[in-house]
Amino acid sequence: MNYPNGVKLHKQKQINYSNRGMVLEADLNETNNYYLVNDIAVIHKKPTPITIKKVDYISPQKAKIKDAYFQKASTTDYNGIYRGKYIDFEAKETKDKNCFPLRNIHEHQIDHLRKIIKHGGIGFLIVRFVNYNKTFFLDGKDFMNFLKNNKRKSIPYSYFNEKGYILEIKYNPRLDYLKIIDEIYFKGEYYEEKISKN
Amino acid sequence: MNYPNGVKLHKQKQINYSNRGMVLEADLNETNNYYLVNDIAVIHKKPTPITIKKVDYISPQKAKIKDAYFQKASTTDYNGIYRGKYIDFEAKETKDKNCFPLRNIHEHQIDHLRKIIKHGGIGFLIVRFVNYNKTFFLDGKDFMNFLKNNKRKSIPYSYFNEKGYILEIKYNPRLDYLKIIDEIYFKGEYYEEKISKN
Repeated sequence: MNYPNGVKLHKQKQINYSNRGMVLEADLNETNNYYLVNDIAVIHKKPTPITIKKVDYISPQKAKIKDAYFQKASTTDYNGIYRGKYIDFEAKETKDKNCFPLRNIHEHQIDHLRKIIKHGGIGFLIVRFVNYNKTFFLDGKDFMNFLKNNKRKSIPYSYFNEKGYILEIKYNPRLDYLKIIDEIYFKGEYYEEKISKN
Repeated sequence: MNYPNGVKLHKQKQINYSNRGMVLEADLNETNNYYLVNDIAVIHKKPTPITIKKVDYISPQKAKIKDAYFQKASTTDYNGIYRGKYIDFEAKETKDKNCFPLRNIHEHQIDHLRKIIKHGGIGFLIVRFVNYNKTFFLDGKDFMNFLKNNKRKSIPYSYFNEKGYILEIKYNPRLDYLKIIDEIYFKGEYYEEKISKN
């Protein structure tokens, strides 16, 4: 589970989870911000779902949450709109060298992606293998095909090499995943050309 | 601001905000669940955005949030997919009898809705006047037209009567807003007919 920025560790076993997956998340937030300010797409990360148990009302305007817990996400982390189409994806980092363990994605999230694809949306995964510093775009249909044809609890690295698209880290946008979507879903009609025409 | 279910009031000025807007929210959650289980649409409420300041790691699996604050939402509360189209809306209750005060919707949320419409999505408001127990669907384009042509800080009730669509409360789905979308965006080709054909 990824914790939002600014989480301070406190008391007890000080295990530092705070950096887990945060680099990829930061890259994607920058990318989405580039798409937003350049009017290319509107794609946001959803807030982390939390169950709130106790709130202090410091003033009518200010409430302090004193007791709350992280929930399991029932949908993916990112969604939005691009070229009129609904976009939906999950992004994960793995330290594994040979595969992407499927325990990283909850069953609910897989069901959600399956439904999105069925309803005509564009669903996919972005997976970073931190040891190779390689980031892949895996289209939702290829992800679903893998799950249908395999009983394994992980997707081998070779499957990403075969079916995935490499996302090179660039200056701006950091991880240009819409370029891959243009290629797969819009016959390579790249949005950059649209911008330069304006 | 709406607080999620299960919020317990604690210490200091015990102002009960917990019921504000919760009835409409519950109606919409039920409606969205009906759409989901009947495979009509995939539309979810986003989690409430929170800034986390302090976390206790009780165990590697369990983290307790000890200090956090509610954030202003930068997008709307609900989004998803229907008939391949991107759906995005905000839902609000008002106790006002004559108008819907625009302070209920942040500037960021209005900008967000404007962008969604520009990118080809279906954006709208659902507003309930609790005193009349009337719930309106106001299409995003009519909302934007009002803002463009008026300097007022509220939308009069008469504007909802003129431009909005009444959402009757039914047994299931509670507030069938997709029927309105069928009427406006899909030439009245109702999804119920699609279901009965299956």
